[in-house]
Amino acid sequence: MSDRGFVVTPWEVKGEVDYDKLMEEFGVQPIDDKLEEKLKRYTCGQLHPQIGRKVFFSHRDLDWILDRYEDGEKFFLYTGRGPSGHTHIGHIIPWIFTRDLQRYFDAEVYFQLTDDEKFLVKPDLSLEDTIGYAYDNALDVIACGFEKGKTWLFLDTEYMKTLYGIAVRIAKHITFSTVKAIFGFTSSTNIGMVFFPAIQAAPCFLPSILKGRNIPCLIPAAIDQDPYWRGVARAVAPRLGFYKPAQIHCKFLPGLGRGGKMSASQPETAIFTTDRLEVAEAKIMNAYTGGQPTVKEQRAKGGNPDICPIYQYYLFLFEEDDGRLKERYLDCRSGSLLCGDCKETLAKRVSSFLKEHQKRRIKAKNVLEDFILRD
Amino acid sequence: MSDRGFVVTPWEVKGEVDYDKLMEEFGVQPIDDKLEEKLKRYTCGQLHPQIGRKVFFSHRDLDWILDRYEDGEKFFLYTGRGPSGHTHIGHIIPWIFTRDLQRYFDAEVYFQLTDDEKFLVKPDLSLEDTIGYAYDNALDVIACGFEKGKTWLFLDTEYMKTLYGIAVRIAKHITFSTVKAIFGFTSSTNIGMVFFPAIQAAPCFLPSILKGRNIPCLIPAAIDQDPYWRGVARAVAPRLGFYKPAQIHCKFLPGLGRGGKMSASQPETAIFTTDRLEVAEAKIMNAYTGGQPTVKEQRAKGGNPDICPIYQYYLFLFEEDDGRLKERYLDCRSGSLLCGDCKETLAKRVSSFLKEHQKRRIKAKNVLEDFILRD
Repeated sequence: MSDRGFVVTPWEVKGEVDYDKLMEEFGVQPIDDKLEEKLKRYTCGQLHPQIGRKVFFSHRDLDWILDRYEDGEKFFLYTGRGPSGHTHIGHIIPWIFTRDLQRYFDAEVYFQLTDDEKFLVKPDLSLEDTIGYAYDNALDVIACGFEKGKTWLFLDTEYMKTLYGIAVRIAKHITFSTVKAIFGFTSSTNIGMVFFPAIQAAPCFLPSILKGRNIPCLIPAAIDQDPYWRGVARAVAPRLGFYKPAQIHCKFLPGLGRGGKMSASQPETAIFTTDRLEVAEAKIMNAYTGGQPTVKEQRAKGGNPDICPIYQYYLFLFEEDDGRLKERYLDCRSGSLLCGDCKETLAKRVSSFLKEHQKRRIKAKNVLEDFILRD
Repeated sequence: MSDRGFVVTPWEVKGEVDYDKLMEEFGVQPIDDKLEEKLKRYTCGQLHPQIGRKVFFSHRDLDWILDRYEDGEKFFLYTGRGPSGHTHIGHIIPWIFTRDLQRYFDAEVYFQLTDDEKFLVKPDLSLEDTIGYAYDNALDVIACGFEKGKTWLFLDTEYMKTLYGIAVRIAKHITFSTVKAIFGFTSSTNIGMVFFPAIQAAPCFLPSILKGRNIPCLIPAAIDQDPYWRGVARAVAPRLGFYKPAQIHCKFLPGLGRGGKMSASQPETAIFTTDRLEVAEAKIMNAYTGGQPTVKEQRAKGGNPDICPIYQYYLFLFEEDDGRLKERYLDCRSGSLLCGDCKETLAKRVSSFLKEHQKRRIKAKNVLEDFILRD
């Protein structure tokens, strides 16, 4: 994929992603006007900002699952997280969207924490590490405001008795050459990773098995996870007698480094939910922007919000009002808005978001057990 | 392997096995006189018949594990069964030996029932089928007389939460190319089977993990299972901080068909523990033998017990007395013993063995739950 200037796999996102190219390559549909209108019926007559702003921008079978819903057949939501470190704001974006879908559609949420995957794929992480991060990340999920009694988080290693029975049924139909083609596995891939796609596909069918009837599944997740659903879950669903899971895909929140870089080895390129407020603010104040090198040039030529991570933060989460977002865009373009001011406003908003999130995160510890599924 | 006239893999045993060749190929040691003397110290001063008759004939690190035992460090026994059908007498042979080892060494036994493996490898079996056979086979294990409170049977699918945590630690060190080389996996192998070697290796370290200290493991099993221990469990043990599991290998009881054929698709070639007594007797009376086509020729030339499955039944299990076994061998060779009489005696012994086993099998249902480990 390197010849096109970006890489998107379930384990790596690099370069400036061309989402149109990705949609074509993955064979997924854009969320078009007609589908937006259909969605509006369930989302209080207004488009969810993440849909309106094309943060969630493409899908598979979303129209189908809405038709089923219309016919009285409720769906569940399935998403997850690979717990290889602390949660950052980029992770939270689709969780907030999923929480809102839960409210709109009164849907159960199944949330997979792939402690096994991150242990298997990261040479330096022990299973104790990834289990620790899973519980740490779970607090962030709960802090997003998912509904107790309708939201089920599970660590793969703690729920494996249940998951494995489904995973082997999937695995029986998936050969090594299939996962080689989909995920780029090689002979040097460890056998845990080779099997793992069956485990990530298993929750697509979990509620149907738990409840003894076929229940449609909608997966809100970043588009890099698409190969799991396309090549594994959707491929085997008919053979196992289940619906193919529907999907709705989001973009990646760019990091605060040059060219949207966000890297675990450079913690200054991401805002973690566990960052102290002044640390988070400093990261924003030090971020790369789409602005000019000097105030004078900015005033004269204007900045470029399209390549600016600061602007993307506003667009993804930190400016609810579409009018004000547009204003900010135009003010940047015209040169009337300076980067320093723009950053300062964002820093305050992020700081206040974090403050509230961190409070909810502490409270989440008291209810954690109500959300966790274990064998 | 076909050029040498036999095939031995964990999933297939075909042709007339040359055990000397196999030992050389697998790199295992014969149980020599010195080791036999050492064993005698623990086996009431006498060689166990299955050792004396070379049914159990080779090993890895058996001398080492006896030294540890001598030093006061007890080992546990690990064996298992792939539940793809009913139990036949060939399966029972190593279980009886394992039961006797348990008594000699006061050892705990961990017994794995690989319902997942048999589901993954057999196109026609459902998981419900293999789980059903696992419980059916478990009754035979218990009927062999293993000690309650020291013997733990588990189905992979029901104990996977515990096993998986160990299996991923193993799997992280095992690549696809390793299992390809050891087991002959190809690109068409399903990903469940690719991962499975890690699950079969996991119980080698299970008691050490459950009890929080390194406990030596001795695996009594047919030699076809050796690749699991050689290439996976023993290879990763030092990296995970565990002892390498020791092994003691047995031969295969030949089937009742021509050339020692025993086949699931030809139930008349094996005596199942669930066979009605008259069915079992008829199978023996109809078996292929090493005898001559007519009584006259048998009297004149004698038979060949070395290629006779009936003789092997006596040798493996149905003639306890070494003197009488030798007598039977010589009487066959000389022509004084006719196949019909030899079969009739065996039929009675097998029938009486089965009758007692079937009684114990029924009683086993009452104590089954005391033997089963579940998450």
